[in-house]
Amino acid sequence: MTFKNPEGTQMDRLNKMLDHIKTPDLQCQSLAQQHLDRLTKPPGSLGRLEELAAWYIRVRGKFPPTLPKKALFVFAADHGVCEEGVSAFPQSVTAQMVFNFLKGGAAVNVLARHADAEVRVVDMGVDFDFGEIPTLIHRKIARGTQNMSRGPAMTQKQALAAVITGIDLAEEAAKNGVTLLGTGEMGIGNTTASSAITAVLTGSDIATVTGRGTGIGDETLVLKQAVVRLALNVNQPEASKPLELLQKIGGFEIGGITGLILGGAAHRIPIVIDGFIATAAALIAAALKPEVTAYLLAAHQSAEPGHQIALKHLGLSPLLAFDMRLGEGTGAALGMSMVDAAIKIVNEMATFEQAGVSQKEDDA
Amino acid sequence: MTFKNPEGTQMDRLNKMLDHIKTPDLQCQSLAQQHLDRLTKPPGSLGRLEELAAWYIRVRGKFPPTLPKKALFVFAADHGVCEEGVSAFPQSVTAQMVFNFLKGGAAVNVLARHADAEVRVVDMGVDFDFGEIPTLIHRKIARGTQNMSRGPAMTQKQALAAVITGIDLAEEAAKNGVTLLGTGEMGIGNTTASSAITAVLTGSDIATVTGRGTGIGDETLVLKQAVVRLALNVNQPEASKPLELLQKIGGFEIGGITGLILGGAAHRIPIVIDGFIATAAALIAAALKPEVTAYLLAAHQSAEPGHQIALKHLGLSPLLAFDMRLGEGTGAALGMSMVDAAIKIVNEMATFEQAGVSQKEDDA
Repeated sequence: MTFKNPEGTQMDRLNKMLDHIKTPDLQCQSLAQQHLDRLTKPPGSLGRLEELAAWYIRVRGKFPPTLPKKALFVFAADHGVCEEGVSAFPQSVTAQMVFNFLKGGAAVNVLARHADAEVRVVDMGVDFDFGEIPTLIHRKIARGTQNMSRGPAMTQKQALAAVITGIDLAEEAAKNGVTLLGTGEMGIGNTTASSAITAVLTGSDIATVTGRGTGIGDETLVLKQAVVRLALNVNQPEASKPLELLQKIGGFEIGGITGLILGGAAHRIPIVIDGFIATAAALIAAALKPEVTAYLLAAHQSAEPGHQIALKHLGLSPLLAFDMRLGEGTGAALGMSMVDAAIKIVNEMATFEQAGVSQKEDDA
Repeated sequence: MTFKNPEGTQMDRLNKMLDHIKTPDLQCQSLAQQHLDRLTKPPGSLGRLEELAAWYIRVRGKFPPTLPKKALFVFAADHGVCEEGVSAFPQSVTAQMVFNFLKGGAAVNVLARHADAEVRVVDMGVDFDFGEIPTLIHRKIARGTQNMSRGPAMTQKQALAAVITGIDLAEEAAKNGVTLLGTGEMGIGNTTASSAITAVLTGSDIATVTGRGTGIGDETLVLKQAVVRLALNVNQPEASKPLELLQKIGGFEIGGITGLILGGAAHRIPIVIDGFIATAAALIAAALKPEVTAYLLAAHQSAEPGHQIALKHLGLSPLLAFDMRLGEGTGAALGMSMVDAAIKIVNEMATFEQAGVSQKEDDA
């Protein structure tokens, strides 16, 4: 689907990007599968590792593949809805964690190093003045969104700017030779926004898609669900208008991830999505352009209840089930490491012929 | 439990090893958990990664931990039962794959390199004369077991030798500073033996624990189940006599894994077990000494139907579910990589205090 043109060139740019996204053809995947079946193992016996390899090769459209060059973008932004008391952590933690990411001390830094992925931190709209920090990508749209339970979280222009920022970063990554993207985020309050987005785009009950986020208790959970309900009542977002949904609910980091997914898909870069927030962003991306789902790997099943519903809606099967609920891109980093392992299988294993190993006998 | 002494010093050695295995105390695990809760993330939000870290630290009995030094032992042996036609591959593949392991071209080599684990290949009883190969660990007990469906697969002495070999290798690894062991195997026909072992030690129906192995069709599956039934009828193994069960069913590689588990546990080395065959060996180890289960991580849930039953019997929850059914130690290698990631979380993440991040607010 495409849009009318309220913001001129920005909207043209988005529409052009959407036009570029095609379902990746199956030719390379078929070459990959033929090769996998010649390797010294029973056909299909590496299960999802073989699937990962075939997916990566299909999206890239190139066989044999090279080992992925990996970048994980952590989009940070604040949420006006925090003033309703929906989170277990104060809003100031968003900015504090940005410093932690920049210093390399957060979980996503550790796991991205483990996966040999570069972490890029993006200020999409943190309620803090970072001044000049060269390692931070400065794309602040505003100091946090407005409170979605009292009215729209953003203006139309802001929502579009958030998505375009993600597209910009994907295009820059493509130019730099990145061949595997990971999504990460930080934003106190963003499971609240993600619950609202998931409820609208999957047509689910608010209660079934609204969970404990970073670890709220029973009373706060009831409040959080009421706040999501209020936001949907006040804003009346519609599933058929995904960009307007993003505008009404937020947040800037979710828009950034949506853009990264769209930009990545347009450049045939496979994207490993993290948990609940990333999947809410993927729901928006898929509502804009259903073909993007072929470019996505769901790294893990998070502990957040709405996540499973969102993944099912997208037709994605999560790779890991570690009961993680941290976000940041921690699951994506682990998933990226598994994609590496899968590509190494393709590139480093001997074939039956090379190794002089007898093949499977015909079975009655 | 301990045994009478049919083989003199060998049996003394095994009994001494069993005496050394104690349930690891919880003191270090508690230190680890306290530290994990000070790191910049909601408590428990890294789910199973935190469990992995706490498990490793508990077994090692040392906090803070160092990054694991990892060795993955691939035990290879042949099975007399192959002559019944239970496998999709000819028996000669066992030896061919040993050469593939030594050249580094098999799946386990690729994934072990990915996990930064050394692969050690052990000839426990392959039906092939390897001559002098310095990179192969020569511990051949016989050129394959006898056909378990016609009588005992091994002598008592052979069964004990197989277990002692695994213990020897664990002790050598301990001396070399290895702090994380992985188990692997190669042996055409060894899912047949593992099905028989699992049926006896879990008290399960043969049909529910006997699957398609490397990929047999319907007719061969029926034959395989009949062969397992015959082996149990002929040999009448008892769950209360695990070493005798190993002797009657085989194989040498399964005995080697059993020994590696026991030796590892005696030296407080955590052990990542692979799939169905490794878990059958773990069932024997746990029948000899129930305390060993605390030392085990089940790397993955394999596609083989008996595996889930065996893991449940051991009280182990598999880490990955990739629908893999290759064996060799491929799942163990991936699991070892995840243990590394977990230890890096402990050692590299910033605490709330270090990073100046506000902690969770009290919740009503």
